[in-house]
Amino acid sequence: MRILGIDPGLQITGFGVVDVDGQQLRYVASGTIKTTHLDRGDLPARLKVLFDGVREVVERYQPEYSSVEIVFVNVNPQATLLLGQARGACVTALVSCDLPVAEYTALQLKKAVAGYGKAGKAEVQQMVMRLLKLPALPGKDAADALGLAITHAHAGRSSAILAAATALKPKSSAAYKAGRHY
Amino acid sequence: MRILGIDPGLQITGFGVVDVDGQQLRYVASGTIKTTHLDRGDLPARLKVLFDGVREVVERYQPEYSSVEIVFVNVNPQATLLLGQARGACVTALVSCDLPVAEYTALQLKKAVAGYGKAGKAEVQQMVMRLLKLPALPGKDAADALGLAITHAHAGRSSAILAAATALKPKSSAAYKAGRHY
Repeated sequence: MRILGIDPGLQITGFGVVDVDGQQLRYVASGTIKTTHLDRGDLPARLKVLFDGVREVVERYQPEYSSVEIVFVNVNPQATLLLGQARGACVTALVSCDLPVAEYTALQLKKAVAGYGKAGKAEVQQMVMRLLKLPALPGKDAADALGLAITHAHAGRSSAILAAATALKPKSSAAYKAGRHY
Repeated sequence: MRILGIDPGLQITGFGVVDVDGQQLRYVASGTIKTTHLDRGDLPARLKVLFDGVREVVERYQPEYSSVEIVFVNVNPQATLLLGQARGACVTALVSCDLPVAEYTALQLKKAVAGYGKAGKAEVQQMVMRLLKLPALPGKDAADALGLAITHAHAGRSSAILAAATALKPKSSAAYKAGRHY
């Protein structure tokens, strides 16, 4: 199972591709899509760079699932509106490639990767490096994107366990009832 | 010159197509793209409907320009974020068809169509009906979209007049100076 994680941003969008095989995670690729070379006022052109960039990543790495951060409402409403549009362009690129899109909050990402919701950026980078056995720290945007792919891998595993438990003995099994913590 | 106006919304996106020939405006088509039949929680699916819908309109009517409303920051930040993503999907659809995208505020739309910035929805509908010689009032979303196409037609005309004036006598003409009100 190959998962593409996307950390959307109008200036810098991070991406990370991870292969999942049972408990094994394998790093495939990561990087950023930047719009910083463009006129800040030309929003359509910037959204096009994000859309084309995400599609290019999908075409190159052929993921089967995607995982996108649920962006936060900013203190500055104008910034919220711009970030919303950037995320809209990224999600649109994914669905236009017929990729299933899962969505996770930063809290879910931190819990899945670092084990607790108050982990800082540096801790996420450290844990992503460790989990994927990278030779060096990934950049912040790429680390978040890789973390989102890992988050989806963990979530997928929980669903798989749930499906297996359900398949065993649908309603009567005590083991099934005890296991319903996911 | 054929212009496509888009009034972006997550639930209902309005579109309107207008042909411009000198001073003449001609109605071509208008309508809405709705996501109301979908699960409200499935944002990626809703963005895909908007993206595919806008692209379908472009393919069917082959406009040369597009004109999109600059959406406003809502009192509810979560709604702002959702509207931003809807607008991102619409603009992305337009640029993915290589259409130039012009952006206008509701104020500019009202001034261009009704002559003053405080015009209400009903006045915009009335004026759009009159300007395009429609047999009946257009719906509110379609009226705004048609109004955006008209706004761009007016703006294009001003630029054309400015270009002509500039071409006549670049710096010395009093007429040119007097005419610099656009």
